Amino acid sequence: MITKAQVKHIRSLDDKKNRLEHREFVVEGDKMVTELLQSKLNVIHLFAIKKWIEANKYILPAMADIHEVEESELGRISHMTTPNQVLAVASLPKNNSIEPMGVSLVLDTIQDPGNMGSIIRIADWFGVSSIFCSIHCVDVYNPKVIQSSMGSLFRVGIYYCDILQLLQSHQHVEAYAASLAGDPIRQVVLKKDAFIVIGNESKGISADVMHACHHRMTIPRKGEAESLNAAVATGIICHSLLS
Amino acid sequence: MITKAQVKHIRSLDDKKNRLEHREFVVEGDKMVTELLQSKLNVIHLFAIKKWIEANKYILPAMADIHEVEESELGRISHMTTPNQVLAVASLPKNNSIEPMGVSLVLDTIQDPGNMGSIIRIADWFGVSSIFCSIHCVDVYNPKVIQSSMGSLFRVGIYYCDILQLLQSHQHVEAYAASLAGDPIRQVVLKKDAFIVIGNESKGISADVMHACHHRMTIPRKGEAESLNAAVATGIICHSLLS
Repeated sequence: MITKAQVKHIRSLDDKKNRLEHREFVVEGDKMVTELLQSKLNVIHLFAIKKWIEANKYILPAMADIHEVEESELGRISHMTTPNQVLAVASLPKNNSIEPMGVSLVLDTIQDPGNMGSIIRIADWFGVSSIFCSIHCVDVYNPKVIQSSMGSLFRVGIYYCDILQLLQSHQHVEAYAASLAGDPIRQVVLKKDAFIVIGNESKGISADVMHACHHRMTIPRKGEAESLNAAVATGIICHSLLS
Repeated sequence: MITKAQVKHIRSLDDKKNRLEHREFVVEGDKMVTELLQSKLNVIHLFAIKKWIEANKYILPAMADIHEVEESELGRISHMTTPNQVLAVASLPKNNSIEPMGVSLVLDTIQDPGNMGSIIRIADWFGVSSIFCSIHCVDVYNPKVIQSSMGSLFRVGIYYCDILQLLQSHQHVEAYAASLAGDPIRQVVLKKDAFIVIGNESKGISADVMHACHHRMTIPRKGEAESLNAAVATGIICHSLLS
Protein backbone atom coordinates (compact mmCIF):
# COMPACT_ATOMS: atom_id res chain seq x y z
CA MET A 1 0.00 0.00 0.00
CA ILE A 2 1.32 3.41 -0.99
CA THR A 3 -0.13 6.46 0.76
CA LYS A 4 -0.98 9.72 -1.00
CA ALA A 5 1.77 11.43 0.98
CA GLN A 6 4.32 8.86 -0.27
CA VAL A 7 3.21 9.34 -3.89
CA LYS A 8 3.55 13.10 -3.48
CA HIS A 9 6.98 12.81 -1.87
CA ILE A 10 8.35 10.40 -4.48
CA ARG A 11 7.06 12.52 -7.34
CA SER A 12 8.58 15.62 -5.76
CA LEU A 13 11.99 13.95 -6.15
CA ASP A 14 11.73 14.50 -9.91
CA ASP A 15 13.00 18.00 -9.13
CA LYS A 16 16.64 18.55 -8.33
CA LYS A 17 15.69 21.18 -5.73
CA ASN A 18 13.66 18.62 -3.77
CA ARG A 19 16.33 15.92 -4.17
CA LEU A 20 18.87 18.28 -2.64
CA GLU A 21 16.52 19.40 0.11
CA HIS A 22 15.62 15.84 1.18
CA ARG A 23 18.99 14.32 0.18
CA GLU A 24 17.09 11.49 -1.55
CA PHE A 25 16.69 10.15 -5.10
CA VAL A 26 14.64 7.48 -6.88
CA VAL A 27 15.82 4.31 -8.63
CA GLU A 28 13.45 2.15 -10.67
CA GLY A 29 13.28 -1.31 -12.16
CA ASP A 30 14.66 -4.73 -11.26
CA LYS A 31 18.09 -4.31 -12.84
CA MET A 32 18.80 -0.84 -11.48
CA VAL A 33 17.51 -1.54 -7.97
CA THR A 34 19.55 -4.77 -7.82
CA GLU A 35 22.65 -2.75 -8.76
CA LEU A 36 21.72 -0.17 -6.12
CA LEU A 37 21.42 -2.86 -3.44
CA GLN A 38 24.90 -4.12 -4.35
CA SER A 39 26.36 -0.62 -3.98
CA LYS A 40 27.39 1.25 -0.84
CA LEU A 41 24.44 3.61 -1.10
CA ASN A 42 21.82 3.70 1.61
CA VAL A 43 18.31 2.55 0.62
CA ILE A 44 15.57 4.24 2.65
CA HIS A 45 12.29 3.00 1.12
CA LEU A 46 11.57 0.16 -1.26
CA PHE A 47 8.22 -0.44 -3.01
CA ALA A 48 7.93 -3.76 -4.81
CA ILE A 49 5.45 -6.35 -5.97
CA LYS A 50 5.18 -9.57 -3.96
CA LYS A 51 6.99 -11.67 -6.60
CA TRP A 52 10.00 -9.34 -6.59
CA ILE A 53 10.24 -9.27 -2.79
CA GLU A 54 10.16 -13.06 -2.65
CA ALA A 55 12.77 -13.45 -5.37
CA ASN A 56 15.09 -10.93 -3.66
CA LYS A 57 14.48 -11.59 0.03
CA TYR A 58 18.12 -12.46 0.72
CA ILE A 59 19.47 -9.17 -0.60
CA LEU A 60 16.91 -6.82 0.94
CA PRO A 61 18.59 -4.27 3.21
CA ALA A 62 17.77 -4.85 6.86
CA MET A 63 17.33 -1.17 7.67
CA ALA A 64 15.09 -0.20 4.74
CA ASP A 65 11.39 0.47 4.97
CA ILE A 66 9.93 -2.17 2.60
CA HIS A 67 6.42 -2.01 1.14
CA GLU A 68 4.71 -4.73 -0.79
CA VAL A 69 2.54 -3.08 -3.44
CA GLU A 70 0.32 -3.96 -6.38
CA GLU A 71 1.56 -3.31 -9.92
CA SER A 72 -1.16 -0.68 -10.36
CA GLU A 73 0.17 1.19 -7.30
CA LEU A 74 3.70 1.11 -8.72
CA GLY A 75 2.27 2.82 -11.81
CA ARG A 76 1.36 5.84 -9.65
CA ILE A 77 4.97 6.52 -8.65
CA SER A 78 6.82 5.24 -11.72
CA HIS A 79 8.37 7.21 -14.58
CA MET A 80 8.33 4.15 -16.76
CA THR A 81 5.66 3.49 -19.32
CA THR A 82 5.68 -0.10 -18.07
CA PRO A 83 6.40 0.05 -14.31
CA ASN A 84 8.97 -2.58 -13.54
CA GLN A 85 8.36 -4.52 -10.30
CA VAL A 86 10.29 -2.29 -7.92
CA LEU A 87 11.14 1.31 -7.03
CA ALA A 88 13.59 2.42 -4.34
CA VAL A 89 14.29 5.72 -2.62
CA ALA A 90 17.96 6.05 -1.66
CA SER A 91 20.07 8.65 0.17
CA LEU A 92 22.09 11.00 -2.01
CA PRO A 93 25.77 10.32 -1.38
CA LYS A 94 27.74 13.21 0.13
CA ASN A 95 29.48 15.34 -2.48
CA ASN A 96 32.78 15.22 -0.59
CA SER A 97 35.57 16.54 -2.70
CA ILE A 98 38.30 13.98 -3.20
CA GLU A 99 41.89 14.25 -4.30
CA PRO A 100 42.15 13.23 -7.96
CA MET A 101 44.16 10.03 -8.42
CA GLY A 102 45.17 8.47 -11.74
CA VAL A 103 42.98 9.46 -14.69
CA SER A 104 39.74 11.37 -14.12
CA LEU A 105 37.12 12.77 -16.44
CA VAL A 106 36.25 16.47 -16.09
CA LEU A 107 32.93 17.54 -17.64
CA ASP A 108 32.25 21.16 -18.52
CA THR A 109 28.47 21.72 -18.70
CA ILE A 110 27.28 18.40 -20.12
CA GLN A 111 23.55 19.05 -20.21
CA ASP A 112 21.86 16.17 -21.99
CA PRO A 113 20.80 13.42 -19.53
CA GLY A 114 21.38 10.68 -22.13
CA ASN A 115 24.92 11.91 -22.79
CA MET A 116 25.67 12.09 -19.06
CA GLY A 117 24.42 8.53 -18.55
CA SER A 118 26.49 7.29 -21.50
CA ILE A 119 29.61 9.05 -20.19
CA ILE A 120 29.20 7.42 -16.77
CA ARG A 121 28.97 4.00 -18.51
CA ILE A 122 32.12 4.85 -20.50
CA ALA A 123 34.01 5.72 -17.29
CA ASP A 124 32.85 2.46 -15.72
CA TRP A 125 33.81 0.45 -18.85
CA PHE A 126 37.33 1.87 -19.10
CA GLY A 127 38.02 1.83 -15.36
CA VAL A 128 37.95 5.60 -14.77
CA SER A 129 36.96 5.88 -11.13
CA SER A 130 36.19 9.60 -10.83
CA ILE A 131 34.18 12.14 -12.80
CA PHE A 132 34.35 15.83 -11.85
CA CYS A 133 31.30 17.76 -13.11
CA SER A 134 31.01 21.52 -13.40
CA ILE A 135 28.09 22.88 -11.45
CA HIS A 136 26.17 23.55 -14.69
CA CYS A 137 26.20 19.87 -15.70
CA VAL A 138 22.87 18.03 -15.55
CA ASP A 139 22.28 16.42 -12.14
CA VAL A 140 23.28 12.76 -12.26
CA TYR A 141 20.42 11.85 -9.91
CA ASN A 142 17.95 13.02 -12.57
CA PRO A 143 15.79 9.94 -13.42
CA LYS A 144 16.82 9.99 -17.10
CA VAL A 145 20.53 9.99 -16.23
CA ILE A 146 20.01 7.14 -13.77
CA GLN A 147 18.27 5.02 -16.41
CA SER A 148 20.79 5.71 -19.16
CA SER A 149 23.77 5.07 -16.85
CA MET A 150 22.60 1.42 -16.57
CA GLY A 151 23.89 0.96 -13.01
CA SER A 152 27.34 2.43 -13.66
CA LEU A 153 26.26 5.46 -11.60
CA PHE A 154 26.64 3.36 -8.47
CA ARG A 155 30.23 2.33 -9.29
CA VAL A 156 31.84 5.60 -10.40
CA GLY A 157 32.63 8.49 -8.03
CA ILE A 158 30.92 11.65 -9.27
CA TYR A 159 31.75 15.04 -7.79
CA TYR A 160 30.28 18.46 -8.58
CA CYS A 161 32.76 21.28 -8.15
CA ASP A 162 34.25 24.43 -9.66
CA ILE A 163 36.25 22.64 -12.36
CA LEU A 164 38.38 25.70 -13.17
CA GLN A 165 39.52 25.82 -9.56
CA LEU A 166 40.07 22.02 -9.64
CA LEU A 167 42.40 22.34 -12.63
CA GLN A 168 44.19 25.39 -11.23
CA SER A 169 44.75 23.84 -7.81
CA HIS A 170 46.10 20.58 -9.30
CA GLN A 171 48.70 21.85 -11.74
CA HIS A 172 50.72 18.64 -11.32
CA VAL A 173 47.82 16.69 -12.86
CA GLU A 174 48.08 17.29 -16.62
CA ALA A 175 44.81 18.33 -18.25
CA TYR A 176 43.99 17.12 -21.78
CA ALA A 177 41.20 19.05 -23.52
CA ALA A 178 38.99 17.44 -26.18
CA SER A 179 38.90 20.01 -28.94
CA LEU A 180 38.17 20.36 -32.66
CA ALA A 181 41.79 21.46 -33.12
CA GLY A 182 44.72 19.79 -31.39
CA ASP A 183 47.05 16.80 -31.55
CA PRO A 184 45.47 13.69 -33.13
CA ILE A 185 44.49 11.45 -30.21
CA ARG A 186 46.61 8.54 -31.49
CA GLN A 187 49.70 10.66 -30.82
CA VAL A 188 48.69 11.56 -27.27
CA VAL A 189 50.30 9.66 -24.42
CA LEU A 190 48.58 10.30 -21.12
CA LYS A 191 50.54 11.01 -17.93
CA LYS A 192 49.81 8.70 -15.01
CA ASP A 193 47.81 11.43 -13.25
CA ALA A 194 45.62 13.17 -15.80
CA PHE A 195 42.37 15.01 -16.36
CA ILE A 196 40.47 14.31 -19.61
CA VAL A 197 38.33 17.42 -20.14
CA ILE A 198 35.11 17.22 -22.20
CA GLY A 199 33.05 20.26 -23.15
CA ASN A 200 29.42 21.19 -23.59
CA GLU A 201 27.37 19.61 -26.41
CA SER A 202 27.19 22.77 -28.49
CA LYS A 203 29.70 25.24 -27.03
CA GLY A 204 32.58 22.89 -26.21
CA ILE A 205 34.97 23.73 -23.36
CA SER A 206 34.62 27.24 -21.94
CA ALA A 207 37.50 29.62 -22.62
CA ASP A 208 38.84 29.84 -19.06
CA VAL A 209 38.78 26.06 -18.56
CA MET A 210 40.49 25.56 -21.94
CA HIS A 211 43.14 28.05 -20.89
CA ALA A 212 43.85 25.98 -17.76
CA CYS A 213 44.46 22.81 -19.83
CA HIS A 214 47.99 21.67 -20.75
CA HIS A 215 47.15 19.85 -23.99
CA ARG A 216 44.54 19.94 -26.74
CA MET A 217 43.68 16.76 -28.57
CA THR A 218 41.35 16.00 -31.43
CA ILE A 219 39.67 13.05 -33.13
CA PRO A 220 40.80 13.18 -36.78
CA ARG A 221 37.97 13.74 -39.24
CA LYS A 222 37.73 12.26 -42.73
CA GLY A 223 34.22 13.36 -43.66
CA GLU A 224 32.02 16.41 -43.39
CA ALA A 225 30.29 16.33 -39.98
CA GLU A 226 30.88 19.46 -37.90
CA SER A 227 31.26 17.56 -34.66
CA LEU A 228 30.61 14.30 -32.87
CA ASN A 229 28.13 13.77 -30.06
CA ALA A 230 29.84 14.56 -26.70
CA ALA A 231 29.42 11.03 -25.31
CA VAL A 232 30.66 9.45 -28.55
CA ALA A 233 33.75 11.69 -28.45
CA THR A 234 34.36 10.74 -24.81
CA GLY A 235 34.16 7.05 -25.71
CA ILE A 236 36.63 7.38 -28.58
CA ILE A 237 39.07 9.36 -26.42
CA CYS A 238 38.88 6.92 -23.50
CA HIS A 239 39.41 3.94 -25.79
CA SER A 240 42.33 5.61 -27.53
CA LEU A 241 44.07 6.78 -24.36
CA LEU A 242 43.14 4.12 -21.81
CA SER A 243 43.10 0.74 -23.47
CA MET B 1 0.15 32.97 -43.26
CA ILE B 2 -0.29 29.27 -42.46
CA THR B 3 -3.68 27.70 -43.08
CA LYS B 4 -5.35 25.22 -40.75
CA ALA B 5 -5.00 22.56 -43.42
CA GLN B 6 -1.24 23.20 -43.61
CA VAL B 7 -0.87 22.96 -39.83
CA LYS B 8 -2.79 19.68 -39.87
CA HIS B 9 -0.72 18.28 -42.73
CA ILE B 10 2.64 19.25 -41.20
CA ARG B 11 1.67 17.83 -37.82
CA SER B 12 0.54 14.60 -39.48
CA LEU B 13 4.12 14.14 -40.70
CA ASP B 14 5.13 13.35 -37.09
CA ASP B 15 3.92 9.84 -37.89
CA LYS B 16 6.02 7.53 -40.00
CA LYS B 17 2.88 6.15 -41.65
CA ASN B 18 1.95 9.62 -42.94
CA ARG B 19 5.53 10.39 -43.96
CA LEU B 20 5.56 7.25 -46.09
CA GLU B 21 2.10 7.91 -47.50
CA HIS B 22 2.90 11.49 -48.56
CA ARG B 23 6.62 10.83 -49.20
CA GLU B 24 7.41 14.00 -47.20
CA PHE B 25 9.23 14.91 -43.99
CA VAL B 26 9.85 18.04 -41.89
CA VAL B 27 13.12 19.85 -41.15
CA GLU B 28 13.32 22.69 -38.62
CA GLY B 29 15.63 25.48 -37.62
CA ASP B 30 18.12 27.71 -39.42
CA LYS B 31 21.08 25.33 -39.29
CA MET B 32 19.22 22.22 -40.38
CA VAL B 33 17.23 23.91 -43.15
CA THR B 34 20.40 25.56 -44.48
CA GLU B 35 22.02 22.11 -44.62
CA LEU B 36 18.91 20.75 -46.33
CA LEU B 37 19.05 23.49 -48.98
CA GLN B 38 22.67 22.56 -49.70
CA SER B 39 21.75 18.90 -50.19
CA LYS B 40 20.27 17.16 -53.22
CA LEU B 41 16.91 16.74 -51.52
CA ASN B 42 13.84 18.39 -52.95
CA VAL B 43 12.21 21.11 -50.78
CA ILE B 44 8.45 21.40 -51.33
CA HIS B 45 7.28 24.02 -48.79
CA LEU B 46 9.20 26.48 -46.68
CA PHE B 47 7.74 28.56 -43.84
CA ALA B 48 10.01 31.28 -42.49
CA ILE B 49 9.99 34.63 -40.78
CA LYS B 50 10.72 37.70 -42.90
CA LYS B 51 14.22 38.17 -41.47
CA TRP B 52 15.23 34.61 -42.38
CA ILE B 53 13.87 34.89 -45.94
CA GLU B 54 15.76 38.13 -46.50
CA ALA B 55 19.00 36.73 -45.12
CA ASN B 56 18.72 33.59 -47.27
CA LYS B 57 17.13 34.90 -50.45
CA TYR B 58 20.03 33.77 -52.64
CA ILE B 59 19.81 30.13 -51.58
CA LEU B 60 16.02 29.73 -51.68
CA PRO B 61 15.00 26.97 -54.10
CA ALA B 62 13.23 28.33 -57.15
CA MET B 63 10.62 25.59 -57.25
CA ALA B 64 9.61 25.62 -53.59
CA ASP B 65 6.41 27.07 -52.25
CA ILE B 66 7.68 29.77 -49.84
CA HIS B 67 5.56 31.33 -47.09
CA GLU B 68 6.51 34.31 -44.99
CA VAL B 69 5.07 33.75 -41.51
CA GLU B 70 5.05 35.34 -38.07
CA GLU B 71 7.04 33.71 -35.26
CA SER B 72 3.78 32.91 -33.46
CA GLU B 73 2.58 31.01 -36.53
CA LEU B 74 5.80 29.02 -36.64
CA GLY B 75 5.05 27.96 -33.07
CA ARG B 76 1.91 26.18 -34.28
CA ILE B 77 3.84 23.82 -36.56
CA SER B 78 7.14 23.51 -34.67
CA HIS B 79 8.39 20.69 -32.44
CA MET B 80 10.86 23.00 -30.82
CA THR B 81 10.21 24.69 -27.51
CA THR B 82 11.65 27.83 -29.10
CA PRO B 83 10.63 27.77 -32.79
CA ASN B 84 13.63 28.70 -34.83
CA GLN B 85 12.92 31.03 -37.77
CA VAL B 86 12.23 28.41 -40.42
CA LEU B 87 10.59 25.05 -41.13
CA ALA B 88 10.74 23.13 -44.41
CA VAL B 89 8.82 20.20 -45.84
CA ALA B 90 10.99 18.08 -48.13
CA SER B 91 10.46 15.02 -50.31
CA LEU B 92 11.58 11.71 -48.85
CA PRO B 93 14.43 10.38 -50.96
CA LYS B 94 13.76 7.10 -52.76
CA ASN B 95 14.94 4.07 -50.81
CA ASN B 96 16.72 2.66 -53.87
CA SER B 97 18.94 -0.21 -52.92
CA ILE B 98 22.55 0.41 -53.86
CA GLU B 99 25.52 -1.86 -54.27
CA PRO B 100 27.72 -1.57 -51.16
CA MET B 101 31.11 -0.02 -51.95
CA GLY B 102 34.03 0.34 -49.54
CA VAL B 103 33.05 0.32 -45.86
CA SER B 104 29.37 0.52 -44.84
CA LEU B 105 27.61 0.45 -41.50
CA VAL B 106 24.86 -2.14 -41.02
CA LEU B 107 22.43 -1.44 -38.16
CA ASP B 108 20.36 -4.23 -36.63
CA THR B 109 17.30 -2.70 -34.89
CA ILE B 110 18.75 0.54 -33.53
CA GLN B 111 15.67 1.97 -31.88
CA ASP B 112 16.65 5.08 -29.95
CA PRO B 113 16.34 8.24 -32.10
CA GLY B 114 19.28 9.91 -30.30
CA ASN B 115 21.51 6.91 -30.96
CA MET B 116 20.48 6.82 -34.62
CA GLY B 117 21.25 10.53 -35.02
CA SER B 118 24.64 10.10 -33.32
CA ILE B 119 25.50 7.12 -35.55
CA ILE B 120 24.69 9.12 -38.70
CA ARG B 121 27.04 11.89 -37.43
CA ILE B 122 29.73 9.25 -36.79
CA ALA B 123 29.39 7.91 -40.36
CA ASP B 124 29.63 11.45 -41.72
CA TRP B 125 32.67 12.23 -39.49
CA PHE B 126 34.64 9.14 -40.51
CA GLY B 127 33.68 9.27 -44.19
CA VAL B 128 31.39 6.22 -44.24
CA SER B 129 29.04 6.97 -47.12
CA SER B 130 26.37 4.30 -46.62
CA ILE B 131 24.30 2.98 -43.72
CA PHE B 132 22.08 -0.06 -44.20
CA CYS B 133 19.30 -0.21 -41.60
CA SER B 134 17.19 -3.24 -40.76
CA ILE B 135 13.48 -2.59 -41.19
CA HIS B 136 13.02 -2.51 -37.40
CA CYS B 137 15.39 0.43 -36.94
CA VAL B 138 13.84 3.77 -35.97
CA ASP B 139 12.88 5.84 -39.02
CA VAL B 140 15.64 8.35 -39.78
CA TYR B 141 13.04 10.93 -40.88
CA ASN B 142 11.65 10.95 -37.33
CA PRO B 143 12.02 14.58 -36.09
CA LYS B 144 14.24 13.52 -33.13
CA VAL B 145 16.65 11.66 -35.40
CA ILE B 146 16.80 14.62 -37.78
CA GLN B 147 17.67 17.01 -34.94
CA SER B 148 20.29 14.76 -33.37
CA SER B 149 21.93 13.97 -36.73
CA MET B 150 22.88 17.68 -36.98
CA GLY B 151 22.68 17.83 -40.79
CA SER B 152 24.72 14.67 -41.39
CA LEU B 153 21.48 12.96 -42.45
CA PHE B 154 21.64 14.90 -45.71
CA ARG B 155 25.18 13.74 -46.52
CA VAL B 156 25.09 10.01 -45.76
CA GLY B 157 23.19 7.46 -47.87
CA ILE B 158 20.72 5.58 -45.68
CA TYR B 159 18.94 2.48 -46.94
CA TYR B 160 16.33 0.29 -45.21
CA CYS B 161 16.51 -3.34 -46.23
CA ASP B 162 16.54 -6.95 -45.08
CA ILE B 163 20.07 -6.85 -43.65
CA LEU B 164 20.35 -10.64 -43.40
CA GLN B 165 19.69 -10.90 -47.12
CA LEU B 166 22.15 -8.03 -47.74
CA LEU B 167 24.91 -9.92 -45.93
CA GLN B 168 24.07 -13.24 -47.53
CA SER B 169 23.95 -11.84 -51.05
CA HIS B 170 27.28 -10.00 -50.64
CA GLN B 171 29.52 -12.75 -49.31
CA HIS B 172 32.57 -11.09 -50.89
CA VAL B 173 32.07 -8.09 -48.56
CA GLU B 174 33.45 -9.19 -45.19
CA ALA B 175 31.11 -8.52 -42.26
CA TYR B 176 32.56 -7.50 -38.87
CA ALA B 177 30.14 -7.84 -35.96
CA ALA B 178 30.42 -5.64 -32.84
CA SER B 179 30.10 -8.08 -29.97
CA LEU B 180 30.85 -8.44 -26.27
CA ALA B 181 33.16 -11.34 -27.16
CA GLY B 182 35.53 -11.32 -30.12
CA ASP B 183 38.92 -10.05 -31.26
CA PRO B 184 40.03 -6.81 -29.58
CA ILE B 185 39.33 -4.05 -32.12
CA ARG B 186 42.97 -2.91 -32.16
CA GLN B 187 43.86 -6.25 -33.75
CA VAL B 188 41.20 -6.02 -36.44
CA VAL B 189 42.28 -4.95 -39.92
CA LEU B 190 39.34 -4.17 -42.16
CA LYS B 191 39.16 -5.40 -45.75
CA LYS B 192 38.66 -2.71 -48.41
CA ASP B 193 35.02 -3.72 -48.85
CA ALA B 194 33.48 -4.33 -45.45
CA PHE B 195 30.30 -4.20 -43.39
CA ILE B 196 30.56 -3.01 -39.78
CA VAL B 197 27.52 -4.53 -38.06
CA ILE B 198 26.06 -2.89 -34.93
CA GLY B 199 23.29 -4.46 -32.87
CA ASN B 200 20.26 -3.36 -30.91
CA GLU B 201 20.69 -1.29 -27.71
CA SER B 202 19.71 -4.10 -25.37
CA LYS B 203 19.69 -7.32 -27.39
CA GLY B 204 22.75 -6.80 -29.59
CA ILE B 205 22.95 -8.43 -33.01
CA SER B 206 20.24 -10.99 -33.74
CA ALA B 207 21.40 -14.61 -33.99
CA ASP B 208 20.85 -15.07 -37.72
CA VAL B 209 22.62 -11.82 -38.63
CA MET B 210 25.52 -12.72 -36.30
CA HIS B 211 25.75 -16.10 -38.01
CA ALA B 212 26.11 -14.37 -41.38
CA CYS B 213 29.09 -12.27 -40.15
CA HIS B 214 32.69 -13.32 -40.87
CA HIS B 215 34.35 -11.75 -37.79
CA ARG B 216 33.46 -10.77 -34.25
CA MET B 217 35.23 -7.87 -32.64
CA THR B 218 35.04 -6.34 -29.18
CA ILE B 219 36.04 -3.17 -27.33
CA PRO B 220 38.28 -4.32 -24.46
CA ARG B 221 36.86 -3.59 -21.02
CA LYS B 222 38.85 -2.65 -17.94
CA GLY B 223 36.03 -1.81 -15.55
CA GLU B 224 32.67 -3.16 -14.53
CA ALA B 225 30.05 -1.77 -16.95
CA GLU B 226 27.99 -4.46 -18.69
CA SER B 227 27.98 -2.66 -22.02
CA LEU B 228 28.51 0.63 -23.78
CA ASN B 229 25.83 2.74 -25.42
CA ALA B 230 25.35 1.58 -29.05
CA ALA B 231 26.35 4.94 -30.58
CA VAL B 232 29.43 5.19 -28.33
CA ALA B 233 30.50 1.68 -29.38
CA THR B 234 29.99 2.60 -33.06
CA GLY B 235 32.17 5.69 -32.60
CA ILE B 236 34.99 3.74 -30.94
CA ILE B 237 34.89 1.04 -33.64
CA CYS B 238 34.87 3.55 -36.52
CA HIS B 239 37.78 5.48 -35.00
CA SER B 240 39.77 2.32 -34.39
CA LEU B 241 39.17 0.80 -37.84
CA LEU B 242 38.85 3.82 -40.10
CA SER B 243 41.30 6.48 -38.98
